[in-house]
Amino acid sequence: MTESASSKPGSRHRILVAAATMLGENPAARLSVRSVAARAGVSTGSLRHHFPTQRVLEDAVLAGIYDLVAPDDPIHDTDTPARDRLVGCLRQILAPTGTGRQARAALRQTYETLIATEPTEETRQGYLALERTMQHRVEHWLAVLADEGALPHGDNAQRAKFLLTVVNGLTLERALPSAESVLVSENAALFAAVDAILGG
Amino acid sequence: MTESASSKPGSRHRILVAAATMLGENPAARLSVRSVAARAGVSTGSLRHHFPTQRVLEDAVLAGIYDLVAPDDPIHDTDTPARDRLVGCLRQILAPTGTGRQARAALRQTYETLIATEPTEETRQGYLALERTMQHRVEHWLAVLADEGALPHGDNAQRAKFLLTVVNGLTLERALPSAESVLVSENAALFAAVDAILGG
Repeated sequence: MTESASSKPGSRHRILVAAATMLGENPAARLSVRSVAARAGVSTGSLRHHFPTQRVLEDAVLAGIYDLVAPDDPIHDTDTPARDRLVGCLRQILAPTGTGRQARAALRQTYETLIATEPTEETRQGYLALERTMQHRVEHWLAVLADEGALPHGDNAQRAKFLLTVVNGLTLERALPSAESVLVSENAALFAAVDAILGG
Repeated sequence: MTESASSKPGSRHRILVAAATMLGENPAARLSVRSVAARAGVSTGSLRHHFPTQRVLEDAVLAGIYDLVAPDDPIHDTDTPARDRLVGCLRQILAPTGTGRQARAALRQTYETLIATEPTEETRQGYLALERTMQHRVEHWLAVLADEGALPHGDNAQRAKFLLTVVNGLTLERALPSAESVLVSENAALFAAVDAILGG
């Protein structure tokens, strides 16, 4: 994006730093235009120029944080076929869930915070921010594969949403009883999901 | 299956009726070979002839129950395109979950029975039996579409498992906070899943 005459040079960067700092202080914080502009020392008009909506602002901040924490993302390992890389990336999301008792404990946390009772607005916004981080992360992987030519250009937001729905299903299934090894059927589901995306 | 000389005519039917009755009396019952054979008045050898494993027996009983309760299944409505029918069928599985408070209550039941603590063997077997009913139901839909020529012949068990993983993901998402209408993104995910199956 080019800086327009109406905004001071560097204001975009200052806004992102201010917003990231505020999120660092309180991960569940809502980044209101007014509060972030005040923290960055810019006008709300300037902030709106760079980030027309609160969601665009939050997304930019979260994407920036993600690039910072995961610079050696395996999606870039071009010695491995695209489908294996994408399945490997999705496994990264599933890995912290564990299996058996650990998977049940992971789901308990989600259940108690978000499902047992109607979540508070703050909890809800915190969850939606985390969900967008995940969505960004998957869209980032898809963008890398599209740039390589391994994925037809298309609606990566919708593709990422679909892949995350499959991951959510697998997360639930890891916590539920299973007749066979969960990892065998999980493998088949991950490749089916990834092939659905890469094939069209 | 033809009756062999070693089994009395009609014993297969008597076994299925006995097992279905036992399941009707206690849906979480394990259908042991010995107990079902006793109830049906056949030898365990005859039961093993018709149903080599407990799982084959349970599957046959559950498939029979399903054909009985859903004779007017919309999968047979050939005026509607195959993909729309299959999406409609999957919606039937999702419908009882509801949205919002109702979806959270539905997940609470699953959580408390199966996830909060390690389920008992009886609860576990009851869940696996229900899961196989679902799996049969989806495989039945896929078999109908394959017979029509709308679906290439292939591994319908694995395809059904994949579709149920997507349904599980959507079930969890119905109970979680959502930025947009859950039904819009759900629609996209259901068609993506179904197209992945019908396309290959």
